[in-house]
Amino acid sequence: MHIDDLSRRLDFLREIDRLKCVVRQSPLLDRSRKENSAEHSWHLAMYALVLADYAAATIDITRVMKMLLLHDIVEVDAGDIPIHGASNEHQAELETRAAERIFGLLPDDANQVFGELWREFEDGQSEDAQFAKALDRFQPLLVNVFTQGGTWSESCVSYEQVLERYGPTIQRGAPALWELARRWVATHFDT
Amino acid sequence: MHIDDLSRRLDFLREIDRLKCVVRQSPLLDRSRKENSAEHSWHLAMYALVLADYAAATIDITRVMKMLLLHDIVEVDAGDIPIHGASNEHQAELETRAAERIFGLLPDDANQVFGELWREFEDGQSEDAQFAKALDRFQPLLVNVFTQGGTWSESCVSYEQVLERYGPTIQRGAPALWELARRWVATHFDT
Ligand SMILES: [Ca+2]
Repeated sequence: MHIDDLSRRLDFLREIDRLKCVVRQSPLLDRSRKENSAEHSWHLAMYALVLADYAAATIDITRVMKMLLLHDIVEVDAGDIPIHGASNEHQAELETRAAERIFGLLPDDANQVFGELWREFEDGQSEDAQFAKALDRFQPLLVNVFTQGGTWSESCVSYEQVLERYGPTIQRGAPALWELARRWVATHFDT
Repeated sequence: MHIDDLSRRLDFLREIDRLKCVVRQSPLLDRSRKENSAEHSWHLAMYALVLADYAAATIDITRVMKMLLLHDIVEVDAGDIPIHGASNEHQAELETRAAERIFGLLPDDANQVFGELWREFEDGQSEDAQFAKALDRFQPLLVNVFTQGGTWSESCVSYEQVLERYGPTIQRGAPALWELARRWVATHFDT
């Protein structure tokens, strides 16, 4: 191990401290403030650990945790795009450039491993990525339901829009979670 | 899977949202505010992923990540005890009761697995726990060094106290990190 290997790894770890300052739309459950992307990533890794048996397929929990821990790191450069916000054509390009710059702080081998895990999550094709994405969609839904509507009320989101924006991703990666979430949503919108 | 299994898991995941409100002594690297224990746990899991090759022994990265993700959850009830704060005799008892209550929200099998991982971390005897503890000590040291003294200046901590409070734990679990950290500390205290 060269000193350069270690110092590059530490540069990366210092750089991603900034994820703690990327503020998401979702509030904390006690509604005291908005959630940031670092603590969100911690919570999602805990969701994966606790809910692994609810995945649609037999998943590799280690890979899912890793994906969830690093899936939002690109937001250090690219910012958080709310699910109900205006779509941004350049976001994908911004995020790709962010991944190159930030993972590129690492030594080559780690850069490649992290970049591949991040792209696998983004692509959402593997069973591990589908479960990770289902959790990334399920957690803010849970927050909205348990904060009397949260970002749905703020953004005037309808029952149909919730079903459409959350349903397919959660259903695909964790059908039992969608089964429950669908009922929460129906109760919330009182349909 | 029973609906009761799922609802207990979700109760736990909602309860630990409160870790985002447990404020630590350490600041963020940009010094904009203090760090909370949830985002700290995320960062430590990333430290483990990025620095695994610097462990004293061949560690099981999955177990180390799990330990680091859940090691501070007891703080939801017991609060964070700063390394340089007054020692509290009852803290260990408070934390044991917190672990029983909070992990006890989970179904029995998960309660047992999480409780055992938490105790393994606390005991600090296994090689996985020793690496996890080394990172939990190394990260705030790094923050102090890169924020011109941070909590050391605030608490009037001396060079000798830093060596004594951080050294053995980091040295045992990740000697190459202590090799570097020791030099940072010497430079910081200008010895
Ligand atoms: Ca701690």
